Amino acid sequence: MRLRLELAYLGRFFEGWQVQAPRAGGTAARTVQGELEKALRDLFGSEIRAHGAGRTDSGVHADGQVAHVDLPPGAPSIPFEGIRRGLNTKLSEDVRVLSVSEAAPDFHARHSAIGKVYVYRLRRGELLHPHRGLVEALASEPLDVAAMGAAAAALVGRRDFAPFSLTGSDPGTTVRTLARLDVEEQGTLLVITAVGDGFLRGMVRRLVGTLRDVGRGRIRPEDAPIKPGPTAEARGLTLERVLYPPETFPGDFPAAAGAPVSSG
Amino acid sequence: MRLRLELAYLGRFFEGWQVQAPRAGGTAARTVQGELEKALRDLFGSEIRAHGAGRTDSGVHADGQVAHVDLPPGAPSIPFEGIRRGLNTKLSEDVRVLSVSEAAPDFHARHSAIGKVYVYRLRRGELLHPHRGLVEALASEPLDVAAMGAAAAALVGRRDFAPFSLTGSDPGTTVRTLARLDVEEQGTLLVITAVGDGFLRGMVRRLVGTLRDVGRGRIRPEDAPIKPGPTAEARGLTLERVLYPPETFPGDFPAAAGAPVSSG
Repeated sequence: MRLRLELAYLGRFFEGWQVQAPRAGGTAARTVQGELEKALRDLFGSEIRAHGAGRTDSGVHADGQVAHVDLPPGAPSIPFEGIRRGLNTKLSEDVRVLSVSEAAPDFHARHSAIGKVYVYRLRRGELLHPHRGLVEALASEPLDVAAMGAAAAALVGRRDFAPFSLTGSDPGTTVRTLARLDVEEQGTLLVITAVGDGFLRGMVRRLVGTLRDVGRGRIRPEDAPIKPGPTAEARGLTLERVLYPPETFPGDFPAAAGAPVSSG
Repeated sequence: MRLRLELAYLGRFFEGWQVQAPRAGGTAARTVQGELEKALRDLFGSEIRAHGAGRTDSGVHADGQVAHVDLPPGAPSIPFEGIRRGLNTKLSEDVRVLSVSEAAPDFHARHSAIGKVYVYRLRRGELLHPHRGLVEALASEPLDVAAMGAAAAALVGRRDFAPFSLTGSDPGTTVRTLARLDVEEQGTLLVITAVGDGFLRGMVRRLVGTLRDVGRGRIRPEDAPIKPGPTAEARGLTLERVLYPPETFPGDFPAAAGAPVSSG
C-alpha cells in the first residue's frame, strides 16, 4: 500500500530534506528524510523509503511538504491516524506529520506534482522576534515595495530560468513556468509568494534576492529577468504547498519573448 | 548611569533567567542573565550585573522582560541604539534586546515593578505546529472553556496563594493580588492571561494546570481556589509585560473571604 504524508518542519535544525552520504568520520547530516525514515523503521520494523515532493535545501522550512512511502507486504496494519500519531511520537518536535492518507499506486510525490507554492517572509525592521522570527529573514534597509512588485510582474511567465539556478545543478530543461510572484505587505512583514510548475535548485531564493536588490535600487525592475541578484537566506523560505490533480495549475503562460524554450 | 533593557526570548534553550552556580564538572547552565552579562562584558569591557524583573523558570519565554544594569564609571560612551544593536550582535538569536533607555538612579527592575502580565498559550488539537508551537503547550483532551472561565473568575482577588506555589520556595508573605485571569478562545488557541501585583514561584503554571483540570471536569470551578491542580508545562508560558509607574495596576481587591492575609 502506498501512503501520502503531509509534513511541516522548521528547517533551522535540518541540513535539508534529502539523505546525504555520511561525512568523513562517519557522522550523518540530520535531514528531514532521514529522520522520517528512522521513524518509519521504528514504527513498522523495516526499512521504508520516503520520496519527497521537493528537496528543500538546508535551512528551508515546509508547511505542506508531501512525501509518499510504500508499506512492505506484511507490515503491521495500523490505521492512518495511528500512523500519524506514531510517527509524531517518534519524531522530534521540529518536524510533524500533518496528515496520512492512502495514495493511488501510481501516485508519486515528486513526479505527480503539477506545481508548488513557496512563501518567503522578509521582516522589515531592526530585529527578528525570537518567538516568530525562525521562519523569517531580516531586511533592515529601506525597500521600494512598488518597484519590487513591478519586477515580480516582469519575472512571471514561461521562460528559461537557468540564470536563477545554482550553477550546473539542474539536469534537463531549465524552462519553468512562474505563474505567480506576489509581493504583499502585512504590517512590517513582506510576504513574497511564488507559484510555479517547478523550481530549479535555489531558484526561489534567487528570485527573492533579485527582488530585494530591486527594492534597494540596485537593479531596475525591468532588468530583473535578465540580471539576477544574490541568493536570499534560506531561513525566510517555506515550501507552503504542493499541487496535485485534481487541483489545476494557475494559468497557461506563453514563452516569454526572447527566452528560449526547450521542450525537454 | 543606569539603563533599562527590555528583552524577548525563546525559553526553550535556556535554563531560566537566573545565573546558577556551576554544576559538578564545571559546566555552567545556559541562562538568559548569563548570556546577557556575557554580551555586556564583551561590549563594555567590564563585568556588569543584570537585574531582571522576573526570574523566569527554565523553558519559560519572555516578550517583555525588563532588566536594569549600571554602567561603571569610565565605560565607553555608546548611544542607546548602538548598545541595543551591539548586544543583539553578540547575543544568539533566541534572545533579543528590544529597547535600551536611561532609567532613574533609583529604578529597580524587580522592586519598582507594580505588576506583571503573563500569557499561557494552550493549543487545542492534535499537534503543535513546528513554526509556531515553540511558545505553546498542547491540549489534546476536550476542555470545558466556560467552566475554566468560571474557575478563573473565582481565583481572581487578593488572597494567600501559598497552595499555588512551589513548596517552600517563597520567603515572606505569600499573599498576592491576582487582578485578572482571562481565558480567551482564539480559533484553536486558548489564551490564558494572568495579571497580578506579583506571582509566587511556579504560580502561573499552577493556576493554568488548575484551570485545565477544571476544563477536564476533574475540579469543580468553585473549588479551584482551594484545590490546586498540577503545574502546567513551562513551554506555554510567556512573561508578556512588566508594569511600572506611571502605569497603574488594574484594580484594588479586598482580601478574599476565608483567605488569611498577612501583611509582610
